[in-house]
Amino acid sequence: MELSCPLPVIGTVRTGHREKETTPIQAGVNRAEHATLEVAERYRDGLDGLQGFDYAWLITWLHQPDQAGQPPLRQVPFLLRRQQRAVGIFATRGPRRVNPIGLSLIQVQAVTGATVEFAGVDLLDGTPVLDLKPYVTRFDQPPGTPRSGWFDEVTFGDGVTPRQLAP
Amino acid sequence: MELSCPLPVIGTVRTGHREKETTPIQAGVNRAEHATLEVAERYRDGLDGLQGFDYAWLITWLHQPDQAGQPPLRQVPFLLRRQQRAVGIFATRGPRRVNPIGLSLIQVQAVTGATVEFAGVDLLDGTPVLDLKPYVTRFDQPPGTPRSGWFDEVTFGDGVTPRQLAP
Repeated sequence: MELSCPLPVIGTVRTGHREKETTPIQAGVNRAEHATLEVAERYRDGLDGLQGFDYAWLITWLHQPDQAGQPPLRQVPFLLRRQQRAVGIFATRGPRRVNPIGLSLIQVQAVTGATVEFAGVDLLDGTPVLDLKPYVTRFDQPPGTPRSGWFDEVTFGDGVTPRQLAP
Repeated sequence: MELSCPLPVIGTVRTGHREKETTPIQAGVNRAEHATLEVAERYRDGLDGLQGFDYAWLITWLHQPDQAGQPPLRQVPFLLRRQQRAVGIFATRGPRRVNPIGLSLIQVQAVTGATVEFAGVDLLDGTPVLDLKPYVTRFDQPPGTPRSGWFDEVTFGDGVTPRQLAP
């Protein structure tokens, strides 16, 4: 089954990254870097109240024209490149997905007009944004320290990029 | 700007809910209830490795045919119904969004074949699923207890439904 729906772009992310291989793999482990979300003028009023939240979820469209077609269902994630170990696509956070929807945890720094400055960058410059949702601690923070599957077996530093993880 | 992309449905959620007004507002505060994700057979291999994660993000398509057209950019969230206070759509977690994409934090109970049993239910029966991403503590858990804007000013019990919040 397939839905066919128009996806309005609510805004665009402005970052310093133009190549996937040198873009940090996850916003949540690259908080030292800052970037900007430019919300389209027509959606500006939707930002009312966002300033009171420390974090937000950026839901983006990660379509890469150089990777058309359905992605493999088992892939080697960036963090397992050295081991060349493949896992199921729904057990990874990689960008090549059935629906190339990205989920980035950003730290809201300032909301000014239609612009959101944030910390935590894992996106290419120009990435279209589909939604922005506030991080709600009571909704989004599970109790304790949840098991994170194969991620618990690998070590990596903040800001790590795919290129740094090359075999 | 608007994207026009096919959105393959990777699976369907099976819950006991058929009416929005009596469906709990958020998975993260309704963990006592269990439900099932039936992944389409063709995507089954993508679940390989998910079993090792305690939690996952369910990304869903919340299109409601009775609510066509663009939603208002300021809305009264379910939790502010009694106060009748409106906030910007990007400062709420409500289902009427520019792109009706839902984000539910589910607790993975069991992965059997193409079926994922989970705890934490906030979806109508039959909701189409666009993506499933593992919850990775290091990516998804911000330090401390982040400020959650207007949510920090309201009190509500687990499993609360829109009907219970009616003015």
